[in-house]
Amino acid sequence: MMIVMKSDATEEQVHSVVERIESVGARAHRSSGEEVTVIGAIGDREHIARLELEGSPGVDRVVPILKPYKLASTQIRHGERSVLEIGGRKIGGEHFALIAGPCTVESRDQLLTAAHAVNQGGATMLRGGAYKPRTSPYAFQGLGTEGLRLLAEAKEQTGLPVVTELMDARDLEPVLEVADVVQIGARNMQNYALLSEVGRSGVPALIKRGLSSTLEELLMAAEYVLKEGNESVMLCERGIRTFETAYRFTLDLTAVPVLKELSHLPVIVDPSHAPGRRDLVEPLSLAAAAAGADGIIVEVHPQPEDAICDGPQQLRTADFARYAQKVEAAAAVAGKASFIAAAA
Amino acid sequence: MMIVMKSDATEEQVHSVVERIESVGARAHRSSGEEVTVIGAIGDREHIARLELEGSPGVDRVVPILKPYKLASTQIRHGERSVLEIGGRKIGGEHFALIAGPCTVESRDQLLTAAHAVNQGGATMLRGGAYKPRTSPYAFQGLGTEGLRLLAEAKEQTGLPVVTELMDARDLEPVLEVADVVQIGARNMQNYALLSEVGRSGVPALIKRGLSSTLEELLMAAEYVLKEGNESVMLCERGIRTFETAYRFTLDLTAVPVLKELSHLPVIVDPSHAPGRRDLVEPLSLAAAAAGADGIIVEVHPQPEDAICDGPQQLRTADFARYAQKVEAAAAVAGKASFIAAAA
Amino acid sequence: MMIVMKSDATEEQVHSVVERIESVGARAHRSSGEEVTVIGAIGDREHIARLELEGSPGVDRVVPILKPYKLASTQIRHGERSVLEIGGRKIGGEHFALIAGPCTVESRDQLLTAAHAVNQGGATMLRGGAYKPRTSPYAFQGLGTEGLRLLAEAKEQTGLPVVTELMDARDLEPVLEVADVVQIGARNMQNYALLSEVGRSGVPALIKRGLSSTLEELLMAAEYVLKEGNESVMLCERGIRTFETAYRFTLDLTAVPVLKELSHLPVIVDPSHAPGRRDLVEPLSLAAAAAGADGIIVEVHPQPEDAICDGPQQLRTADFARYAQKVEAAAAVAGKASFIAAAA
Amino acid sequence: MMIVMKSDATEEQVHSVVERIESVGARAHRSSGEEVTVIGAIGDREHIARLELEGSPGVDRVVPILKPYKLASTQIRHGERSVLEIGGRKIGGEHFALIAGPCTVESRDQLLTAAHAVNQGGATMLRGGAYKPRTSPYAFQGLGTEGLRLLAEAKEQTGLPVVTELMDARDLEPVLEVADVVQIGARNMQNYALLSEVGRSGVPALIKRGLSSTLEELLMAAEYVLKEGNESVMLCERGIRTFETAYRFTLDLTAVPVLKELSHLPVIVDPSHAPGRRDLVEPLSLAAAAAGADGIIVEVHPQPEDAICDGPQQLRTADFARYAQKVEAAAAVAGKASFIAAAA
Repeated sequence: MMIVMKSDATEEQVHSVVERIESVGARAHRSSGEEVTVIGAIGDREHIARLELEGSPGVDRVVPILKPYKLASTQIRHGERSVLEIGGRKIGGEHFALIAGPCTVESRDQLLTAAHAVNQGGATMLRGGAYKPRTSPYAFQGLGTEGLRLLAEAKEQTGLPVVTELMDARDLEPVLEVADVVQIGARNMQNYALLSEVGRSGVPALIKRGLSSTLEELLMAAEYVLKEGNESVMLCERGIRTFETAYRFTLDLTAVPVLKELSHLPVIVDPSHAPGRRDLVEPLSLAAAAAGADGIIVEVHPQPEDAICDGPQQLRTADFARYAQKVEAAAAVAGKASFIAAAA
Repeated sequence: MMIVMKSDATEEQVHSVVERIESVGARAHRSSGEEVTVIGAIGDREHIARLELEGSPGVDRVVPILKPYKLASTQIRHGERSVLEIGGRKIGGEHFALIAGPCTVESRDQLLTAAHAVNQGGATMLRGGAYKPRTSPYAFQGLGTEGLRLLAEAKEQTGLPVVTELMDARDLEPVLEVADVVQIGARNMQNYALLSEVGRSGVPALIKRGLSSTLEELLMAAEYVLKEGNESVMLCERGIRTFETAYRFTLDLTAVPVLKELSHLPVIVDPSHAPGRRDLVEPLSLAAAAAGADGIIVEVHPQPEDAICDGPQQLRTADFARYAQKVEAAAAVAGKASFIAAAA
Repeated sequence: MMIVMKSDATEEQVHSVVERIESVGARAHRSSGEEVTVIGAIGDREHIARLELEGSPGVDRVVPILKPYKLASTQIRHGERSVLEIGGRKIGGEHFALIAGPCTVESRDQLLTAAHAVNQGGATMLRGGAYKPRTSPYAFQGLGTEGLRLLAEAKEQTGLPVVTELMDARDLEPVLEVADVVQIGARNMQNYALLSEVGRSGVPALIKRGLSSTLEELLMAAEYVLKEGNESVMLCERGIRTFETAYRFTLDLTAVPVLKELSHLPVIVDPSHAPGRRDLVEPLSLAAAAAGADGIIVEVHPQPEDAICDGPQQLRTADFARYAQKVEAAAAVAGKASFIAAAA
Repeated sequence: MMIVMKSDATEEQVHSVVERIESVGARAHRSSGEEVTVIGAIGDREHIARLELEGSPGVDRVVPILKPYKLASTQIRHGERSVLEIGGRKIGGEHFALIAGPCTVESRDQLLTAAHAVNQGGATMLRGGAYKPRTSPYAFQGLGTEGLRLLAEAKEQTGLPVVTELMDARDLEPVLEVADVVQIGARNMQNYALLSEVGRSGVPALIKRGLSSTLEELLMAAEYVLKEGNESVMLCERGIRTFETAYRFTLDLTAVPVLKELSHLPVIVDPSHAPGRRDLVEPLSLAAAAAGADGIIVEVHPQPEDAICDGPQQLRTADFARYAQKVEAAAAVAGKASFIAAAA
């Protein structure tokens, strides 16, 4: 941590900062230029952070040098990338995963039709929501445990591992009975109680970036899970909030290469929720794959116009196989192995 | 709801939209200009919303006409403002509330010193966190139940109603034993399970706006509480995320008059977390009061340089009385009654 | 235009809005639901817009129905895409253009080396700045007319059409002597005097999206050029400002398919300025091409570590040919023809 | 400037950075912690900045220590605030200025009525646009020189100094004949040619913050004017672009105290353009004054419903005197002297 002093800081103020740094067992390293003095604090980063030197007399600002996350950082693996193995499917490194299925589990027929279609089209895993976070308390909130039961049936029939969202720690037990991957939604990315519970459970987690979360905060959310000893974490970019009103969210694909530089964890992209429109899902999927994403989680529905939730953004099952082939071609440009062959 | 058709929509596509609107028992009202056709859908708004006509063939976009919140809207009270009464203190209408206290409960001595100081300075309620949401899993997470016990003691000694944060629905019971107002933090604004539980409990709630939540989403979060029959809700602006890096968050004071126009609920401002710096707390507090806020929730600490958390932004207890007088003067410009006299 | 009245609007207020609409020769079309009245105004859009009915008594809000741009819209070409032909090179439709060269013209040697390298690597046009917009008045501002002279020489030697930035209408004449395409920078996107001058000159224009401009505003900037009878306009996405601090700007690739839906004009992406880092240029270029961009404008320098300006983000000339081949592969996924063959 | 090396940077890479720093005559100061090495570069800041060490092998990031602006910084005045004197009116320090008048000069009658009303109500200066930046090329672009002539007449009749916008350097001469203060609009904040011309002219300048400009960029824009020897510069906050759609722009009042900390220049707030609605102008004006602004620039019109431009946001002349008194009361809370008395 570097403490930049104000240009008019007194010698006494500099001295006081040095003393406080040394009081927690760290070393203070002073460097005075013509205009300002900078103090480097070397030692245990949590101890130094707790000093909260921002705003102390004479201090202009505090510049963190070390990243606040540890277990999520690339350094801990010495540059080697994590490859997760989930229900026999690999994700990370050269392995690309296409996770597909309906936004919400609506009925047995809807889910099984979608599951078989994405399985035949080359999907790696099946997604489907039993618990749905809805902005409005008057909107459909998901089928709950009945939805979980249907997901179990679809998994049995297709062999696809299941990804489903957990919103409330009190639902963890039933969700764990069917989920191969537990999804933490964007609105819950900083629900620390939930993250810790998922960490303790050991189940693979897919954490969506919050609507206005920085990459560092996303990695800190992952850190909450990793800290409990759970090493199976995927990061998911799903669009951030900006001033642009032509689409719901702005998909931030720069996050893909940057997250892969900062962290060893696989990076997934959700191309469905950001635009909220079916016709934009394919170009954004191809872009995500070409940018080097380790996977895509996409919404697919047998009859989107009848969907209870997010119909306008769901791909049609009839179009899925052709879509998967184009995604595979784009992923190949970024150096990924064929995933359709792997699924077959 | 208005459905704007594309300029090249066919007669058949227009007809199909009309039919779908009528299929849920609503009326469709067609209006064709030279360039485009617009279809008004009149009837039950949830039924129409579930059609999700966005993205249907020929549809350019769907424009909602009615607000999605009902119980939070000004119309439900015919323009009359809600005045909450909490532990004998009023907030809303002409009643301004100054809620003050330390960020985190750290020790008996720290809390009681702060509580007595803000009480003597004219505060309306006492704030203090027992459970702290922290970006880092390695940071101090609050004293928990011990913190709640100390808050109960401070309340008994000063008579000040207590505002404290709830992060996990599983902690609701112990929190309710001491809290006069339960705070929902910005990161939990869309934790729907938590909102519903607080709604069912009937305890007054102070809901902080999420870092990138629209006013409409904040009102929908309030709606989750109100829907359970709990009418005691306060809205709190605490800074939003923008591109500006000179401060942590950008306090959005336009939200104050606009929320008061859209909703009958009292509107509070937190001037401490947005800037993250003590010297900015006073100008922002005066601005918030002059903009017409119904109250301020501010952090005050006996020795901010020793604070475990957010020290740099906490006011000193020694400065509190003078600060409260300036806030009162600014609130008076906006037509509020004296609150220091009311507290005394 | 739809005028949504407040739920408590009086009959008189509704009547007054209707009268004002009719006063400009437009028709008013009234539609009353149970809760609100909506008035459709049908007629000349500029006349109606000038009424500025927002904020009139009883008016809740005004919803524009028609797009404010005309010449830039897809409708004017009945869905056919513009293909520009510049110095014998095509851009738009199936034609992908790779525009490459140094950020700034620094010296004869630097420019000619770069120009030959990108020409041999398959570039479609040469870029290079003679006038540089710099945040600091103390920074290098470009070689000016000497830079233009060098660009002319590079064009003569390689045959590549030249793209260069114009910042001041008073420099138009010398710039036109060498430029095949005039670039309007992001900071000048709403410099209307400049846009109109470029429109009148008839030179092809490449307009960069402002750091916080909406797509609609970008299209309105294009409209300023098109309105003067200049039909050769390219739109360029170059990153927008968001809260994320891990990179300079956030490249908004959703803009690519959406601009292509709204407008017939070719859409280019600048993958260099947004990340500001060389290692991110390739993944973002591949993503842009896969998303369907009609071209890329990228910075290439013989020795980036010696560059006067933006060195850290410029590709090395030595890496350019391999980079161009990967971009071509990604563009092929989106259906574009080979551009390297076309260049040869 | 501090150069933070990557944790796996080699000794050779560290050495190379040190050498490059020394190559421009600066000193390199090396500080190695357990995890990373940080190199401080001490010397001429422009020389060091031109090295552009970001992205060099082994470099993680570069942290600027010194502010990039000099003449605009508080240090250059040793903490003393600039007080400008314009046509006998002071602004800055304890002097608050209320600048009022119509958005656009529309007619002799409209302008003179507004000018007399704001003069009698206590305004310090008169505002009015002769050249208007409009998003649409089809919208009214201002009366031009005829508008300037009318402003001259209003100035003669009332004695109020005139503030008017300059959009094109080629209009500088006629504008200087009437303007006491030249306004640089938000869209032109980074039009460097325009800023330099205004700097050279010596006329007092009011620079509006760009829609997504940081405070540092606003200060750099001021630096372009100051560098030419023109010391009369005012900074103006007018709302930034955020995700919130309930209002046009989000007024950033934290900018007021922060700009006053960073710079000696007076800080003005425009409460009209951000909300775009008349009923929000007063609460935002009171908030701005209470936050410590040195002045307000507000739109006032005799009959806003007939205004050619921005009618919905203009105050009525009939309401101005009462409004000015409330603003004065709010400014007094922040320690400002009476300005209405000064105007009389």
